[in-house]
Amino acid sequence: MTPGVIHGVGLGPGAQDLMSVRADRLVRGARHIAFFRKAGRSGQARRIVDGMLRTDATEFAMEYPVTTEIATSDPRYNAQLSGFYADCARHLITLARGGEDVVVLCEGDPFFYGSFMHLHSRLTGIVPVQVVPGMTGMSGAWTATDTPITWGDDVLTVLTATLPEADLIRRIRDTDALVVMKIGRHLDKLRRAVCEAGRAADAWLVEHAAMPDQRVTRLADADSIAPYFSILLIHGQGRRP
Amino acid sequence: MTPGVIHGVGLGPGAQDLMSVRADRLVRGARHIAFFRKAGRSGQARRIVDGMLRTDATEFAMEYPVTTEIATSDPRYNAQLSGFYADCARHLITLARGGEDVVVLCEGDPFFYGSFMHLHSRLTGIVPVQVVPGMTGMSGAWTATDTPITWGDDVLTVLTATLPEADLIRRIRDTDALVVMKIGRHLDKLRRAVCEAGRAADAWLVEHAAMPDQRVTRLADADSIAPYFSILLIHGQGRRP
Repeated sequence: MTPGVIHGVGLGPGAQDLMSVRADRLVRGARHIAFFRKAGRSGQARRIVDGMLRTDATEFAMEYPVTTEIATSDPRYNAQLSGFYADCARHLITLARGGEDVVVLCEGDPFFYGSFMHLHSRLTGIVPVQVVPGMTGMSGAWTATDTPITWGDDVLTVLTATLPEADLIRRIRDTDALVVMKIGRHLDKLRRAVCEAGRAADAWLVEHAAMPDQRVTRLADADSIAPYFSILLIHGQGRRP
Repeated sequence: MTPGVIHGVGLGPGAQDLMSVRADRLVRGARHIAFFRKAGRSGQARRIVDGMLRTDATEFAMEYPVTTEIATSDPRYNAQLSGFYADCARHLITLARGGEDVVVLCEGDPFFYGSFMHLHSRLTGIVPVQVVPGMTGMSGAWTATDTPITWGDDVLTVLTATLPEADLIRRIRDTDALVVMKIGRHLDKLRRAVCEAGRAADAWLVEHAAMPDQRVTRLADADSIAPYFSILLIHGQGRRP
């Protein structure tokens, strides 16, 4: 039997029509879809494709055993996630070996801080895997501010707010343009770092970019906890004839 | 008369089906398109939409008066480009004031090192402007390597190869993951910088990502001049349960 293909499909920042034509076709045609979500939540990736799926599509919800309950530095964090990803991969391998294609729904771009990467590394060489790149959440975010992110020779630094405060300060000082991902509970630390780096007046927080509840706020005016899908931006000011 | 809208439309890295559904609809429906190109060339943006345009579409080719003939530090470079962008904006304003919508074709994402930004700043507040974000060329590039670019807390730095060699070395040393854009004639300098930073073994050159002539090469094996649409990558090696 010809094995099925596991497709890691980037859905883009959130609006259905910002999905690529290739992703749109795969999602609408899928007999099997799979997606990650926090236990008890509907899941952002699944929500993006609402109304697009075949009525006979089979859904495989992969629920993280842990998200923020254990520190990422705790060995139990890696152990629990590692077992979880192995279980998910096993299920997908069974489907592919039975000749079924599966579309794994991925927010943004699958290879840019995406959970699908942990399946990709466990599936490659075992069953056919194909990745459809997606528009990143950060493209959605800077477009929401109606301001370009990089001009001329601008340096762009992409950070995660999970980094230690001193690292954030040093790197925010040393870049022209900035994107910070994975903010959530780290917003207060991030705000202190941006202020300490002297960039507070230039920093914008974009929540739910490209989604109906999109919100663009000066960092100074932001609440103390940001939604997981929020991105901090500082726009570059490089050469512009 | 209701003015028309100038749409800055991101086309993504090159494959037609990596365009967003929104971009696809705008391009196929456009009565007027505009695009930048080097004089005497067909233009990458225009090439991406080959076969998609209405037969009655009017095309406005905006030909750069200068690309690499004058150094960007020479005042004549800015003066020539500034006049050129003003002329292009004037033409688009005339169309919009006549009630016509125009689709400006943009490679990659319009707000990420894009020429459209120079029109956007000249049109905003004068006629309606809307931006459709696109998949970046770098997403196409790392997907071409079949390897994720950032894991866990990885720092990603995006540079242009036009920077001085010492800046390149310092920044390449100080990042987990790396993307370098605008390579072209700067490839030899970039190669020296990557070697000096001790990252030569990890560096990949991707030419024409997501296009039929896509090519992924170890930097060590690359020619001495790269096409304009080539991107250098070093993949992050961060946390992976």
